[in-house]
Amino acid sequence: MTTSKGKIGNFFEDFQIGQVFTHASPRTITLGDVALYNGLYGARFAVQSSEPFAQAIGYPRAPVDDLIVFHIVFGKSVADISLNAVANLGYADCRFLEPVYPGDTLGAVSEVIGLKENSNRTSGVVYVRTTGRKQSGLPVLQFVRWVMVRKRHPSAPAPEPVVPGLASRVDPAALAPHLPRLDVSRYDDQLAGSPYRWADYAVGEKIDHADAMTLEEAEHQIATRLYQNTARVHFNQHAQAQGQFKRRLVYGGIIMSLARALSFNGLANAFHIAAINGGRHVAPSFAGDTIYAWSEILETAEIPLRHDVGAVRARLVALKNRACADFPLKTASGEDAEGVVLDLDLWLVLPR
Amino acid sequence: MTTSKGKIGNFFEDFQIGQVFTHASPRTITLGDVALYNGLYGARFAVQSSEPFAQAIGYPRAPVDDLIVFHIVFGKSVADISLNAVANLGYADCRFLEPVYPGDTLGAVSEVIGLKENSNRTSGVVYVRTTGRKQSGLPVLQFVRWVMVRKRHPSAPAPEPVVPGLASRVDPAALAPHLPRLDVSRYDDQLAGSPYRWADYAVGEKIDHADAMTLEEAEHQIATRLYQNTARVHFNQHAQAQGQFKRRLVYGGIIMSLARALSFNGLANAFHIAAINGGRHVAPSFAGDTIYAWSEILETAEIPLRHDVGAVRARLVALKNRACADFPLKTASGEDAEGVVLDLDLWLVLPR
Amino acid sequence: MTTSKGKIGNFFEDFQIGQVFTHASPRTITLGDVALYNGLYGARFAVQSSEPFAQAIGYPRAPVDDLIVFHIVFGKSVADISLNAVANLGYADCRFLEPVYPGDTLGAVSEVIGLKENSNRTSGVVYVRTTGRKQSGLPVLQFVRWVMVRKRHPSAPAPEPVVPGLASRVDPAALAPHLPRLDVSRYDDQLAGSPYRWADYAVGEKIDHADAMTLEEAEHQIATRLYQNTARVHFNQHAQAQGQFKRRLVYGGIIMSLARALSFNGLANAFHIAAINGGRHVAPSFAGDTIYAWSEILETAEIPLRHDVGAVRARLVALKNRACADFPLKTASGEDAEGVVLDLDLWLVLPR
Repeated sequence: MTTSKGKIGNFFEDFQIGQVFTHASPRTITLGDVALYNGLYGARFAVQSSEPFAQAIGYPRAPVDDLIVFHIVFGKSVADISLNAVANLGYADCRFLEPVYPGDTLGAVSEVIGLKENSNRTSGVVYVRTTGRKQSGLPVLQFVRWVMVRKRHPSAPAPEPVVPGLASRVDPAALAPHLPRLDVSRYDDQLAGSPYRWADYAVGEKIDHADAMTLEEAEHQIATRLYQNTARVHFNQHAQAQGQFKRRLVYGGIIMSLARALSFNGLANAFHIAAINGGRHVAPSFAGDTIYAWSEILETAEIPLRHDVGAVRARLVALKNRACADFPLKTASGEDAEGVVLDLDLWLVLPR
Repeated sequence: MTTSKGKIGNFFEDFQIGQVFTHASPRTITLGDVALYNGLYGARFAVQSSEPFAQAIGYPRAPVDDLIVFHIVFGKSVADISLNAVANLGYADCRFLEPVYPGDTLGAVSEVIGLKENSNRTSGVVYVRTTGRKQSGLPVLQFVRWVMVRKRHPSAPAPEPVVPGLASRVDPAALAPHLPRLDVSRYDDQLAGSPYRWADYAVGEKIDHADAMTLEEAEHQIATRLYQNTARVHFNQHAQAQGQFKRRLVYGGIIMSLARALSFNGLANAFHIAAINGGRHVAPSFAGDTIYAWSEILETAEIPLRHDVGAVRARLVALKNRACADFPLKTASGEDAEGVVLDLDLWLVLPR
Repeated sequence: MTTSKGKIGNFFEDFQIGQVFTHASPRTITLGDVALYNGLYGARFAVQSSEPFAQAIGYPRAPVDDLIVFHIVFGKSVADISLNAVANLGYADCRFLEPVYPGDTLGAVSEVIGLKENSNRTSGVVYVRTTGRKQSGLPVLQFVRWVMVRKRHPSAPAPEPVVPGLASRVDPAALAPHLPRLDVSRYDDQLAGSPYRWADYAVGEKIDHADAMTLEEAEHQIATRLYQNTARVHFNQHAQAQGQFKRRLVYGGIIMSLARALSFNGLANAFHIAAINGGRHVAPSFAGDTIYAWSEILETAEIPLRHDVGAVRARLVALKNRACADFPLKTASGEDAEGVVLDLDLWLVLPR
């Protein structure tokens, strides 16, 4: 007697516009998660690294790294949204709404906001808006992502195509709505690791983040499990050996976190990611790949009513097995340059 | 001048019936251990994952995963009992007596309850009953295990053989004696990840847990050290290269934890392991192996005086490098099927 | 428009006698760090492992392992001192001044106390005294280290050579100045794992620590990132493949921690490292190497005014891929024996 109780994952034809998924396994974030995050990526931003540093400038305590929040909320959505995904296509309108502290419990819901079958009828694109909330209901993170999801049956009828309109960037007025008022006179540049504050960055500036990290299977698996992200391509070598790449794929969020940690060299005072305007995993990464990163300053903006902090919009580019002194991005013909694996568009917050 | 201070481990002739070992290194379990456990196995059971979820149903706070408790108590016993073991032969009568919370400190004692020399006189079987206790003395876990231990000298005299009688299963009336009374009306199936409660499982039902995890050397070593388990076969490649397998062996408890984590797909509401009726490590696992799992429901039982929860007895089978859609267990001739590495008999507790 | 904001690391000609570096990224140590440390090395000393054990003898709570403190303070100094180092040459006068507890935040400063250009003019030796402090300013650790650092330009002028005089050992009167008074009558040898206290060790005694650990890339990377140590040789396989060793080098502190954890077999009651009199990384280690360790008792000493504890000076030697039953150290001709990777001279504190 076999049952379907273990069956998991939705296919393209299982999604409907307006459908809401309350994802399983609410998750209390702890100092243990923070330690493991630090061990996996080597984050050094002083606000997250030091309780007294955070408290000196006005946080009640050290917040957790913004990308821990992202990965945990994202991870929750995988079982319902992207277990049968072919590819994670993009992100938009990702806003970090509230600092998260150890002890907070995060849950997540996703609403289907777009559906478009592919012309080959074997898959389709699903757009969801995912919201992470604290136990109190307070939203901490909201983002749109779209993924290409397999159909169970090619013959299943296609839904009316709906493609949501998405802004190319978050309005600076919407950034960091609940960031505490900070006493930046008590922000110690030496302890933070850099003399460069908000006003010191100029549009067009490119920064080579200099360091690099080689990925190991154990590292990406531990990280991805920590986020309770169960996408099989990251964990099952026995099945992956039969697939296109013959290897386990590294969860793209790991490249985001590595690139962010590397960006400390040159952006040490960019202590908060306020928004991800857009993002694209340009190519897959695998264990053994060495990740480099560089940034370009795209825009600087005041945040209305805030005299303590300002925003810098930066393109954060990660490469594998290629150093970044020449800031590789596109070929002469406009293709993605060899080695580019991640292209993120971020709003960063720095002290003024 | 050399001394024997570094000498470690007992041999078969060092054990006597009735001997009691108070194991070294009491261990305070922390949220850090929990985070690492989550990173190593990807546990998703809501009661352990979320403080508010646990508190809503009546726990004072989120308990730690039952198998953390098992591994830490087991790990303590290794230095005295099984450092010179040839094989860990089996478990019986393993009962989880008390929820364990971060901040609790666990110690362990073992009593020798059986001894039987092997006919080749080079080794013998040692039976111990191991008890884990909180700092207050409160027992949290008790189990019998038997291991084949080498003799120091084949000529050492054999003790009178004593083989303890062991029940084939724990009586349901003895399950979960100190589980808090739970308000299961506040148990949220959606957050827990499954609509199936106690009454929804039927004897004979088989569940393929669908997912799989590939083991890495760094992962099993980190886990096994976390439990302060010092068995050499898990850590010393230099010595193992000269042995039968040429490789480090994965601590069998890691397969237990992986299979348990995978069983979330189909048994998401089985939030508590109340007992391990019996268990056998059928074959060794190594780094690079991919672990799959399936379960069969063997029995369902009410727990006397409990209207909040019920018990499901499940066989949890783990395989390496073999998917479980066809529930592999035995060959036609009754041998263990190819790929089976673990065969556990569990009492699980679910909300009614 | 490229900028130098991401530029990192100092060269030999950037250092001046008396120069003080306040290192970036103060770091709050948590129970998460402790768990990860335990998972990476398998520490079993009861004082650090158990809150009730530590409190029974007089600690306010369980202190963190001394080497966590060392690695975190050392790690902070890397970005300013040794990012362009060719080799870490030695340590001296390293004193652990104050117990550190989870929740403490550590910062570090280094003062340049010696400079000596090498005769080839492409590099020079930099001597620094590094001090780690709690948030209150209380010093917790002080040590001298010297490193060979590359010059940016061989033609840069050489400074006047200054080589600091360094004592060969810390005076026992200076050991453990703020160790709490301990009630050693409540120190439980059985729980601690050894009957041997301070008076049981004799000068000349050699102890084989029996166990061994094989290193994995993921393990040393996670550990080294946990300490926010950014030395590139540990992380960047893409660059290392072009270098002398073709591989990532393991941070020498990892060998220190592994050897220390292994030394539990024979030195289980040596619960506190009070000082590192000197130390030398004799040869590099790599992933795949198996680390063994042995100790020789060099000296025993009373600590003035302390009747609770005494000091044992021990040479802790680590080897790779070579067992220690014959205590390998030097060849007949006085060279370092094959396999020796670490030679540490420690003051250990034990209960009397």
